[in-house]
Amino acid sequence: MRKIDVCPTPELLHLYNLENKIAVIVDVFRATSCMTTAFAHGIEKIIPVAQIEECKVLQEQGYLAAAERNAMKVEGFDLDNSPFSYMKPDLTGRTLAMTTTNGTLALTKSKSAQQVLIGSFLNRKAITDYLLTQPYDVLVVCAGWKGKYNLEDTLFAGAVVCSLKNEFAIEDDAALAANMIYDAAKYNMIKFIAHSSHVRRLARLNLTRDIEFCLREDLYNVVPILRNGALVKM
Amino acid sequence: MRKIDVCPTPELLHLYNLENKIAVIVDVFRATSCMTTAFAHGIEKIIPVAQIEECKVLQEQGYLAAAERNAMKVEGFDLDNSPFSYMKPDLTGRTLAMTTTNGTLALTKSKSAQQVLIGSFLNRKAITDYLLTQPYDVLVVCAGWKGKYNLEDTLFAGAVVCSLKNEFAIEDDAALAANMIYDAAKYNMIKFIAHSSHVRRLARLNLTRDIEFCLREDLYNVVPILRNGALVKM
Repeated sequence: MRKIDVCPTPELLHLYNLENKIAVIVDVFRATSCMTTAFAHGIEKIIPVAQIEECKVLQEQGYLAAAERNAMKVEGFDLDNSPFSYMKPDLTGRTLAMTTTNGTLALTKSKSAQQVLIGSFLNRKAITDYLLTQPYDVLVVCAGWKGKYNLEDTLFAGAVVCSLKNEFAIEDDAALAANMIYDAAKYNMIKFIAHSSHVRRLARLNLTRDIEFCLREDLYNVVPILRNGALVKM
Repeated sequence: MRKIDVCPTPELLHLYNLENKIAVIVDVFRATSCMTTAFAHGIEKIIPVAQIEECKVLQEQGYLAAAERNAMKVEGFDLDNSPFSYMKPDLTGRTLAMTTTNGTLALTKSKSAQQVLIGSFLNRKAITDYLLTQPYDVLVVCAGWKGKYNLEDTLFAGAVVCSLKNEFAIEDDAALAANMIYDAAKYNMIKFIAHSSHVRRLARLNLTRDIEFCLREDLYNVVPILRNGALVKM
């Protein structure tokens, strides 16, 4: 039987074996929700980079560039970290360089996996439908917040476990706990995570609309996958 | 307002500031449950050590010595890691050197805190009653399993958050999530954690009696505290 597990933060990724696994990277607020939205609106390729400086270099080479730190856009870049910024028709066919506080780091650290996918509530069903067709074990890698555990990524991980658990064995306690938390929250996720640290952080920045959007389930039928260092639509 | 937070595994402890905090170390299965039981039955002092070799040296100097790795007693030591082994009358007044897979590491890594206490379900109320009298923020440090998240220590952390949350602010998502998990599990913890990795591991070793005992709440009114490198009863 295939196995499903959850890594609660990239800071613990060295304890997991990625070989022959599909890593699903999630940063609900908001990197992987933005990436999913961007692909659903015609972006052709996203180059995830860990450092702002690398992102700047790619911008100077003519790419669109998005950089976020501490939930704010870094000055001088084209796009911020709101999914609504990725719905514009003029993004069609473009390549985007992107760096965020947590999401791109989780992605970079996971690249030795057999396949690396981008997950969010927005494309949850597309991701889990795809995982069910594959012969590999799955590890959901939560981006967390600066190395620490967070609630929204755990919720998404729990949603994936919940969708797969008839076909996959739950490997360890982090996956069990994520599943329990999702079960408790699924009927009202917005209320459930109202006290979470990131929601408080985003609400202070008047980003409540982003929060609500990022928690919408199964809006986009896209599966972003990492190929030769860049994300593309499968 | 004082704050309460949870560190899900010692592997993440470098992300937390221990200064002016009380660290409550928990390794439900079974190190901190054994320590609590030992103090309740007359042990005078416990010297926690990280390595088996150090434990051996202390044994040769005449101390009682307990060493566990992978849930089993290490050959040549006096005591294993079952709470029932610490109920014997001949332990009264003795000093014990102890090393375990996870619990003693969590303890060693937390020693820069203002105070370091030993928590378990067995002395939960004693610990939370004491914390309420103190002016310090609290960090529950879960011992986990070889660096990974585990369910039983998270449950205990959630129980502490639950007891303190009227007087302490919940600092971050790990504490929120632990509280949610405890709320979901509290009326039947044994059933709730039946599928956890450690319960499966201990059940294979016929340690079901230990599991049930370690989940009993408020049995002992003892508060073990670290003083000059050794644990004593407060």
